[in-house]
Amino acid sequence: MGEHEGFRSSRPFEKVASGGLLDRRTFLGVGTAAIGTLASGVSGAASGPSLRGYDVPEWMRAPGRPMSPYGEPSQHESAIQRAVQARYGSIAPGAGASTTPLQVLEGTITPNGLHFERHHSGIPEIDPVRHSLLLHGLVKRPLKFSIENLLRYPMTTRTCFIECSGNSAPNVRAEAAQISCGEIHGLLSCSEWSGVPLNLLLDEAGVDPRGRWLLLEGADAAAMSRSVPLDLASTDGILALYQNGERIRPEQGYPLRLVFPGLEGNVNVKWLRRIEVCDGPTHTRDETSKYTDLLPGGKAAQFTFEMGVKSVITRPSAGMAMQGPGLYEISGLAWSGAGRIARVDVSADGGKTWAPAALQDPVLSKSLTRFRIPLEWKREGPVQLQSRASDELGNIQPNRDEWGSRYASGTYYHYNAIQSWTIEPDGRVRNAYG
Amino acid sequence: MGEHEGFRSSRPFEKVASGGLLDRRTFLGVGTAAIGTLASGVSGAASGPSLRGYDVPEWMRAPGRPMSPYGEPSQHESAIQRAVQARYGSIAPGAGASTTPLQVLEGTITPNGLHFERHHSGIPEIDPVRHSLLLHGLVKRPLKFSIENLLRYPMTTRTCFIECSGNSAPNVRAEAAQISCGEIHGLLSCSEWSGVPLNLLLDEAGVDPRGRWLLLEGADAAAMSRSVPLDLASTDGILALYQNGERIRPEQGYPLRLVFPGLEGNVNVKWLRRIEVCDGPTHTRDETSKYTDLLPGGKAAQFTFEMGVKSVITRPSAGMAMQGPGLYEISGLAWSGAGRIARVDVSADGGKTWAPAALQDPVLSKSLTRFRIPLEWKREGPVQLQSRASDELGNIQPNRDEWGSRYASGTYYHYNAIQSWTIEPDGRVRNAYG
Repeated sequence: MGEHEGFRSSRPFEKVASGGLLDRRTFLGVGTAAIGTLASGVSGAASGPSLRGYDVPEWMRAPGRPMSPYGEPSQHESAIQRAVQARYGSIAPGAGASTTPLQVLEGTITPNGLHFERHHSGIPEIDPVRHSLLLHGLVKRPLKFSIENLLRYPMTTRTCFIECSGNSAPNVRAEAAQISCGEIHGLLSCSEWSGVPLNLLLDEAGVDPRGRWLLLEGADAAAMSRSVPLDLASTDGILALYQNGERIRPEQGYPLRLVFPGLEGNVNVKWLRRIEVCDGPTHTRDETSKYTDLLPGGKAAQFTFEMGVKSVITRPSAGMAMQGPGLYEISGLAWSGAGRIARVDVSADGGKTWAPAALQDPVLSKSLTRFRIPLEWKREGPVQLQSRASDELGNIQPNRDEWGSRYASGTYYHYNAIQSWTIEPDGRVRNAYG
Repeated sequence: MGEHEGFRSSRPFEKVASGGLLDRRTFLGVGTAAIGTLASGVSGAASGPSLRGYDVPEWMRAPGRPMSPYGEPSQHESAIQRAVQARYGSIAPGAGASTTPLQVLEGTITPNGLHFERHHSGIPEIDPVRHSLLLHGLVKRPLKFSIENLLRYPMTTRTCFIECSGNSAPNVRAEAAQISCGEIHGLLSCSEWSGVPLNLLLDEAGVDPRGRWLLLEGADAAAMSRSVPLDLASTDGILALYQNGERIRPEQGYPLRLVFPGLEGNVNVKWLRRIEVCDGPTHTRDETSKYTDLLPGGKAAQFTFEMGVKSVITRPSAGMAMQGPGLYEISGLAWSGAGRIARVDVSADGGKTWAPAALQDPVLSKSLTRFRIPLEWKREGPVQLQSRASDELGNIQPNRDEWGSRYASGTYYHYNAIQSWTIEPDGRVRNAYG
């Protein structure tokens, strides 16, 4: 019984664009006829059923370990970690980020242990019994809520992405950084959040007609604070208490954070302790020193809340190597702060020709969407892979030059340009600007 | 500034059934008018914005702890665990189960650390480099796959529940067990699974026309084995490598398990090492000694694969206590192995009157659906809460007597009867048969 070599093919598939891209229906939703051709890699196969030579490994020879109260990943996957970037050392202890390793994950949900982090002064150790949320300012009735109170409130559940405004910033450098997909684009994660609709508490407090903006304050040592317009915040803001079913983890804001589907990461204030209804933005340190986009004319655009339409191929991506000529599945993620992803096109020739990828159901608004398309890799010259997402509002992901022309040099927030990965003839994949 | 007391109300809401049930739209998707009445619990509220008396806690006075490669739940939530039931002790080491604590979770996704376990001989410690999958029997080309091979295959992603055939078995006892909702119904979890469509490998191997059933074998010490009809298995079976984004955990079958959306738990074979295409069922020990339903006439129904339509109120549930009269949100889960949940009705008077609950979007086929409905609890006599799910195929969850009449006494597999929780006048909630 020979070892199977992966899905090499001996006859051609339907090509849909140059560089080896195959029709997205080659694998998904097809009958047996098209798939049966995948079998050519088998060698030495016996002609009938046989278990001869199929070992019973040692882990089948004695009972394994018992049940446990809380599970952990396999020790064989201990390399699957967030990449920790403690940027500021002793100057600003606890400030920095860790990125989700997108290139080794599949599907759309980020497991709780791997959700990206971005902290301004570390993770506060909050006693949930003593923590409270103050809702005050331009309201009829200032209110204070304990976590126990909030846990009794009506809940809602929403699956959405959170993306840091500074995500993908390495790609504004003059030289393409040879770091992993997650290290470039992994200030991005997606969870099923549950909690109390923000609207419910605002209505209970009774917002004064002069109230137009909210000031949101976290209970970390930075008292991280952001302003957000009331109409934007109250659309579908959630006071989240649960993440992927369980109570939110300390680094995600335990015991309480805001979730604003589609809005830039840092308005999703963690360790939330205060909401003040104001008549305008507060211009806090955290929204003036950062998160502002410098424009070519010397002006700056402040308060860019909605994250742009974007996509990235996660497999293959920089640092990986192809395992030989044959069929591969290109797999990636697409998302938009404006709504649902409408389509993702993939190119294998640096943007000259494009083919539509298959989108994995369900395609949810302001959530990650997994896309896939087959590629036949023949080891003939470099292949430049790109993906380009469009959302239901007609927004289209820009290429790197288009994105760059909108901003002053050195600006790096809200970067959503097309990512190019080059597969070299030797199979190695690297970050390469298109 | 007074502490807010939860959402007590001073004026009546629209009643939709007896026992205090309110219209499901009371909270969800309504404008400010209906919600503004929730504010009566506030005492001593100041009339304007004020931070006076709002402490800066000690965790805001110094930087917190830094980023980490892999996160863990808060130490304050360490009580949120699976309930471990090691049933057979030294007779069958590693055999038993642990249940998901449904009553303290929200949303629909089960975090990976809390997915239920059911093992027949413990968790094998498998080296993924040495593990392989054999696909043989009535096929044209027997195939052997390494995990590395499979990781290169085209993938699909599907969110679905897995429920053990023996879930809810405590409720067949003559006396209602006073244990938690999770201990009764928590052999039930829901994840986003990603992996290789089973169809793809079957087509590649080329199934012989005589092939009608699959034999599936796990690499645990029990070599846990089940038969499943080929047509049922190939509909949407997945060779799952990822769970909620990351590689499957050891107790969920690392490095490889089967996922058959909607089918009874134990055909979703963990640690999968062998698929044999057969002309009929193999009648393995694991499908003859267990998972068979005894019928009233003395016959037994074998091979009940599809899990029935079912629901349970998770909050409030047995062992909890109401915190005083006022408004509460009833929250629960509904699911069906046949397809989508179409509606969930809730009763607060032991099944005399019913009101439809709100279903949380998105309602996915063969997945958990969260339902919610408000209850005004007045501490007037016992309140008997029930939920009754219906699916898109017209299946309706039976009550306990209806379920019992279908089977011989002592049968406990595939129990999907309506759960009744009684709220006593003192606020304590207990399991009580309807």
